[in-house]
Amino acid sequence: MPEFLRLTAPDPALKTLFEHFQPQVVGEVVPLEAALRRVTAEAVVARQPLPAFTRSSVDGYALRAADTYGASDSQPAFLKVVGEAPMGANTGFDLRPGEAALIHTGGMLPAAADAVVMVEYTQPVGSGEVEVLRAAAAGENVLQMGEDVQPGQEVIPAGRRIRPAEIGGLAALGVVQVKVARQPRVGILSSGDELVPPEAETQPGQVRDSNSYSLSALVEQAGGVAVRYGILPDLAAPLQATAERALAECDVVVFTAGSSASVRDLTAEVIARLGKPGVLVHGVSVRPGKPTILAVCNGKAVIGLPGNPVSALVIAGLFLRPVIEGALGLPAGGPRPSVAARLTVNVASQAGREDYVAVRLAAGPGGYQAEPIFSKSNLIFSLARADGLVRVPLAATGLEAGEIVSVELIQS
Amino acid sequence: MPEFLRLTAPDPALKTLFEHFQPQVVGEVVPLEAALRRVTAEAVVARQPLPAFTRSSVDGYALRAADTYGASDSQPAFLKVVGEAPMGANTGFDLRPGEAALIHTGGMLPAAADAVVMVEYTQPVGSGEVEVLRAAAAGENVLQMGEDVQPGQEVIPAGRRIRPAEIGGLAALGVVQVKVARQPRVGILSSGDELVPPEAETQPGQVRDSNSYSLSALVEQAGGVAVRYGILPDLAAPLQATAERALAECDVVVFTAGSSASVRDLTAEVIARLGKPGVLVHGVSVRPGKPTILAVCNGKAVIGLPGNPVSALVIAGLFLRPVIEGALGLPAGGPRPSVAARLTVNVASQAGREDYVAVRLAAGPGGYQAEPIFSKSNLIFSLARADGLVRVPLAATGLEAGEIVSVELIQS
Repeated sequence: MPEFLRLTAPDPALKTLFEHFQPQVVGEVVPLEAALRRVTAEAVVARQPLPAFTRSSVDGYALRAADTYGASDSQPAFLKVVGEAPMGANTGFDLRPGEAALIHTGGMLPAAADAVVMVEYTQPVGSGEVEVLRAAAAGENVLQMGEDVQPGQEVIPAGRRIRPAEIGGLAALGVVQVKVARQPRVGILSSGDELVPPEAETQPGQVRDSNSYSLSALVEQAGGVAVRYGILPDLAAPLQATAERALAECDVVVFTAGSSASVRDLTAEVIARLGKPGVLVHGVSVRPGKPTILAVCNGKAVIGLPGNPVSALVIAGLFLRPVIEGALGLPAGGPRPSVAARLTVNVASQAGREDYVAVRLAAGPGGYQAEPIFSKSNLIFSLARADGLVRVPLAATGLEAGEIVSVELIQS
Repeated sequence: MPEFLRLTAPDPALKTLFEHFQPQVVGEVVPLEAALRRVTAEAVVARQPLPAFTRSSVDGYALRAADTYGASDSQPAFLKVVGEAPMGANTGFDLRPGEAALIHTGGMLPAAADAVVMVEYTQPVGSGEVEVLRAAAAGENVLQMGEDVQPGQEVIPAGRRIRPAEIGGLAALGVVQVKVARQPRVGILSSGDELVPPEAETQPGQVRDSNSYSLSALVEQAGGVAVRYGILPDLAAPLQATAERALAECDVVVFTAGSSASVRDLTAEVIARLGKPGVLVHGVSVRPGKPTILAVCNGKAVIGLPGNPVSALVIAGLFLRPVIEGALGLPAGGPRPSVAARLTVNVASQAGREDYVAVRLAAGPGGYQAEPIFSKSNLIFSLARADGLVRVPLAATGLEAGEIVSVELIQS
């Protein structure tokens, strides 16, 4: 088992991969309605101010602040109401000293008005006048033109995953076409003489290919497009031919192979022949997931995943997801969604190995409790039953019952 | 402003809404490839065991454990190698006492074999024999048939959002058609005389309708389907007619109206006429988001959102998302993705009001720091610049600089 002579810790393994793999973001334009979860390929710069005009933030009277100085309940200021600021249009009149205009939230201030007094602090009196019971400061209850955004300002940087708030901001600015990163294509090769497609009835000894489906889902989740190359036999020639086709057609290639040593060696040999520099890391100090291969071939990332279904997903989360995020131009190391929880039992580990322990979360009076799901062989439903993963750091020999741990949520 | 006479706290407000709104999950069948992020409409029950046969979890020799009792480096057991267990098929032979078969990880154990010794603890000798240098216990390095899943076992409950691990588990079981909850249709009505579509150039006083786009994105994110009914004038008759159509065609109806008091009153009147019991909550003790309307009309949830774009998204997260999740059959109160962070400055609030403060996260040596984004009027790009929201609880008068707070991540 030559691959296990030298295990690489996960952080240096990822670093080594990215030393040889420099993702190039390719932009494409999509309509705003299709931009959620896509990643900006370039910064979005405002062409106009937001708000586009000076607006009231309350219902009340637009006025000149100076006309209200000293006003109070006992000594109100009397102003002449000269009209109403219409919604969606310029008022068409200026305020002269001593004048006020009725205005609604969001309405455009008449020229020469510099403040709004809330309707609660006014009292209409007869003959088109209003009593103002409070002094207003200049700018009070007013949203200045450009207060949110100035023309020419960068409002969304490149490499930002678009959320509902960005969609709203883009709509407000009139940006209905967005330049986003093209979704990287991830070719998935499944090999194993024992594998049959999920729709097949199994014969004794046969196993349905589940990894290429769970990995396709993970690729989709990360923002890539999965391309499945089907189930291949454990033979060098067809595997090599399909791998070359996948490398030509995709941005990233992933092998999910059988888990026996001979098959792992076969995958490594196929990757080594795919292109330079080839295999960079063979074996990582992660449990589950030791038999992992990280490679770069002709500038493209190539990953050999362990055959065990839980290992495959854990390792894909550690290495494939950052590759996809890199190809989308996302910055590395953003916060991973998690919750703090109290561990219910001791978890043993080995120093020098990073362990990922599947846990269920239970809400309790003192916050969440994290209960490890122990499964001797990392069976797929042990992961499907889990809410998250707890990392036992490389240097730790375990975690103790009662410790507060960060549970990275396994997301849909 | 009748709506603000009695503000309801957010938790009782949501509870009141769900007392009158009992979502009915409607199932539909989708192929496994389209099942990611969908929610199971019924429990998935295994029709067969997983693993489907007794397998080896290592590379080595399948044997009868009893044949190795007492074996050691100095006193190996000698076993006759009678063949190799093929991948993907039954071996076709039984092991007799004193016999062993070469086996690979994932291979099916020959009948009568009950353990596997790792290849590292064996030594081939000539004449088709192998030395076993260690005693094996029955069941060692063996995955028993049904160890992950037994036939008839519920493997995924109803109301579970499907993640990559569930996709893998379903594929392993041969479930290629999944019964999931139909996505609720959420009708979005935008009203305001000042509103124009995002693609329009604005005239003075006009504002682009951004809320119906940001809300559509939030609906999509939560698992619903957004149906936009366009921009309507602030007039009762057309608003009522469109609202009735939306209520008939959709499962949930959302108003995003102008924010002036008159328009808020108009929305409340339209909702009151839509159906029974009508408006349940008018005004919530949340900032931003006070002018919120929660209603149920003819069994369907109807929500009047504040016009302010940040308020609209915060309130939609508090009330619309749970409604969509309820309609999908998801259990209430699951963990919301968050990270713990240290607040950089004091945040003031009022007792009796739940505040949501947008923050940026910065990674530091001692973990994340949460820096509030103060914006006097909750402008949309103040939210677009944020990584998450910090909740200031109802009873608190603020949060202090240096406190560790839970930052709910604003997700894409």
